[in-house]
Amino acid sequence: RIMRPDDANIAGNVHGGTILKMIEEAGAIISTRHCNSQAGEPSVAALARVERTDFLSPMCIGEVANVSAEITYTSRHSVEVQVNVMSENILTGAKKVTNKATLWYVPLSLKNVNKVLEVPPIQYARKELEDEGKKRYEEQKLDRLETKQRNGDVILPVINPEPHTVGYSQSSLIHLVGPSDCTLLGFVHGGVTMKLMDEVAGIVAARHCKTNIVTASVDAINFHEKIKKGCVITVSGRMTFTSNKSMEIEVFVDADPFVDEPRERYRAVSAFFTYVSLSKEGKPLPVPQLLTETEDEKRRFEEGKGRYLQTKAKRQAQMQQAAQ
Amino acid sequence: RIMRPDDANIAGNVHGGTILKMIEEAGAIISTRHCNSQAGEPSVAALARVERTDFLSPMCIGEVANVSAEITYTSRHSVEVQVNVMSENILTGAKKVTNKATLWYVPLSLKNVNKVLEVPPIQYARKELEDEGKKRYEEQKLDRLETKQRNGDVILPVINPEPHTVGYSQSSLIHLVGPSDCTLLGFVHGGVTMKLMDEVAGIVAARHCKTNIVTASVDAINFHEKIKKGCVITVSGRMTFTSNKSMEIEVFVDADPFVDEPRERYRAVSAFFTYVSLSKEGKPLPVPQLLTETEDEKRRFEEGKGRYLQTKAKRQAQMQQAAQ
Amino acid sequence: RIMRPDDANIAGNVHGGTILKMIEEAGAIISTRHCNSQAGEPSVAALARVERTDFLSPMCIGEVANVSAEITYTSRHSVEVQVNVMSENILTGAKKVTNKATLWYVPLSLKNVNKVLEVPPIQYARKELEDEGKKRYEEQKLDRLETKQRNGDVILPVINPEPHTVGYSQSSLIHLVGPSDCTLLGFVHGGVTMKLMDEVAGIVAARHCKTNIVTASVDAINFHEKIKKGCVITVSGRMTFTSNKSMEIEVFVDADPFVDEPRERYRAVSAFFTYVSLSKEGKPLPVPQLLTETEDEKRRFEEGKGRYLQTKAKRQAQMQQAAQ
Repeated sequence: RIMRPDDANIAGNVHGGTILKMIEEAGAIISTRHCNSQAGEPSVAALARVERTDFLSPMCIGEVANVSAEITYTSRHSVEVQVNVMSENILTGAKKVTNKATLWYVPLSLKNVNKVLEVPPIQYARKELEDEGKKRYEEQKLDRLETKQRNGDVILPVINPEPHTVGYSQSSLIHLVGPSDCTLLGFVHGGVTMKLMDEVAGIVAARHCKTNIVTASVDAINFHEKIKKGCVITVSGRMTFTSNKSMEIEVFVDADPFVDEPRERYRAVSAFFTYVSLSKEGKPLPVPQLLTETEDEKRRFEEGKGRYLQTKAKRQAQMQQAAQ
Repeated sequence: RIMRPDDANIAGNVHGGTILKMIEEAGAIISTRHCNSQAGEPSVAALARVERTDFLSPMCIGEVANVSAEITYTSRHSVEVQVNVMSENILTGAKKVTNKATLWYVPLSLKNVNKVLEVPPIQYARKELEDEGKKRYEEQKLDRLETKQRNGDVILPVINPEPHTVGYSQSSLIHLVGPSDCTLLGFVHGGVTMKLMDEVAGIVAARHCKTNIVTASVDAINFHEKIKKGCVITVSGRMTFTSNKSMEIEVFVDADPFVDEPRERYRAVSAFFTYVSLSKEGKPLPVPQLLTETEDEKRRFEEGKGRYLQTKAKRQAQMQQAAQ
Repeated sequence: RIMRPDDANIAGNVHGGTILKMIEEAGAIISTRHCNSQAGEPSVAALARVERTDFLSPMCIGEVANVSAEITYTSRHSVEVQVNVMSENILTGAKKVTNKATLWYVPLSLKNVNKVLEVPPIQYARKELEDEGKKRYEEQKLDRLETKQRNGDVILPVINPEPHTVGYSQSSLIHLVGPSDCTLLGFVHGGVTMKLMDEVAGIVAARHCKTNIVTASVDAINFHEKIKKGCVITVSGRMTFTSNKSMEIEVFVDADPFVDEPRERYRAVSAFFTYVSLSKEGKPLPVPQLLTETEDEKRRFEEGKGRYLQTKAKRQAQMQQAAQ
């Protein structure tokens, strides 16, 4: 579809969140279709996890986004979908890959949302494709368990914070989950959640460096718990790490089932977003260093540095491989 | 894309206007891409006309709309696009054709919106495809000239009208044209206009028969004049004809370039929409007969009857052809 | 949240209606949460009234709106919420108060929308806070009764009006209430109604003075009756008064429960909006004087003048107090 002014920031770059939302919609369609391809109980595919995603090149207003999706692996209860996004300038015909994302879905019964159904197996062109898929499946399962433990953390407000501290840029928004945010089962679309997360992360990044900013990548996102229609969700973000040219922001999504439900507020999703700062000509700018004050902030900075160096090393290894 | 509660009426049927908007977006993308496929001045394709469109079967919330578009004819300054819409129930896999539409676009220069550029010619698989296209081109050109003359008409308000009269159900809305309604050239997308027209026509139909109603077809729509960002548009509808099971509504779009412009209000678009009334089970219901009062209303009723009988005859001829 | 092009007019000023909608959303969330804070029948808070609101400084595209809400008084069946809106330019860090609003909510049972539930009492820091709240409660109750009587008035269309007359700028729109306009109870959000009211009032103001206009204030708004999903609402506005630099517009909201309901059209809301006209540099411009023709128009002009002078006197008294 054509990118409109609404989809973009004031410099004309399409929000990462808009792209994440399109990716998730394509993933939800193809996996729901696959899970219902055999006779049996009807189901709706629910997003369980998005793998780390890089935004390879920015998309602009007026360009057309081409989204294509393919199922690449199925386990007994989950589906792996690979989604590619190309931006096309229909005036010049130029096309660029802007995103490749891998998403995991789980089929939930249309009659009983707490029942996970079985996934029809796909055919693999070669045996090794299946083995590689199985390996990815095991890895993400492990990672999902790990992040579940990190989940107690809460972002508290700070009074009169200094510029460039964590407290200075931290931000949060609330959103009442309405009917058009939801799937047939009455739960929030994963894509809607990701769009709100990107919005908050973008505000944190802009507050920190006071320039035009764009999403560079999103770490793996795990959807721990479903969010029901009528909930209020609180999306909060804080900066955890800065390198010379990038900022890492941690985002939490908490759900408050405040009507009709005896349940307490719970953590539904968390993730790390990486942003870069751009000049008016679209060139990367240096980012002010994050000032850490508390022990926790220093620890999180070091952890962020670890993730940053790991990603950098991985990218260099890939480039060397490609060059050989 | 997946149809959401927002796209549908309260009975769950997707608004004809939502479908028209998707059709137009697909048409605009493919024709803009084609017009820029050769070196030269960049252009944006502007909608000039939509041929008569039937809504063959209703689409529901939760279904996926598959839209495909193809260029079927090019004249020196215009492009004919054929768009097909299929609805897919991704739970059952059932697919149905919901719409086939033919649209005409004209490339306007990106630098000078008043300059119409030349269209690169397409290759035809067979000579007769080109001849048929040329025939369609000539026909629509003629029809466009004719409707331009009908254009002085204005819908005047009626005080305390009786039920089932024309004055009782006539309705109008105003809409301020914002940035996200517009193309790169700063003019309203044809699809946005059609969605508003369907909204007004649907309210006229519902006011007349006080039941759940759906769009059955839209007559050819000609876009006589462009509408600029910042205009207020007034979309007005009045019922012109009822058969036993259908209602015909005439819709006018007038633009008011009221900020910074010396120009008077002008008629930008006009068209006829046909609606049917449905029971809760989705069966067609009888429609209350329209009470015509003035000479003009009686004349318009007869003209509507003429269009109705012509369409009916054409459909029967097609069915006989198909049966042979 | 970040203000987008859609939220603003073509000069980049955020619509008052967008801000009113955000304010109401925050108010609805905090009061619904409070009303469900004790065991008992679950409820949803419905907007009953918004006190007079001034738009202290315009908000622009790209700025971030910070909305905070606090419960300041509870009576047996109603909750008073104070909402503050700050605009923040995240590039410069500059913050301005743009709005302070006071809203009254009433908890309706989730099981039976016609049943008003009891509100859990809040604790006051000092006894006088409770007394002041009680005084505000009594005052708004009185005012609500009074406005209910003004409610029979209807805006009739005028044929070929002269510029600057009441008939020339009067405008109305219709809107079909869809699922995403509604609360969990299936009634229109107060904020959605206010946004439409601001839209019509803005068009009336722009038609009158043909310049860029912004909302300066909104008089107290009483929500006399709920509006159900599936209704058509007609929002009409007419100018009642002009001073040298401001315009007062009266707006009516009428609901037409036309599907499946035997009920007649009824007046749901009414209010006065005040607008100012701005030059391209954002400076206030003189406003063309309103030409009143009928006795009713002259009476309404005098009433509007009364409100204008009263507000002006109140503001001067406050400034003198502040100066002492």
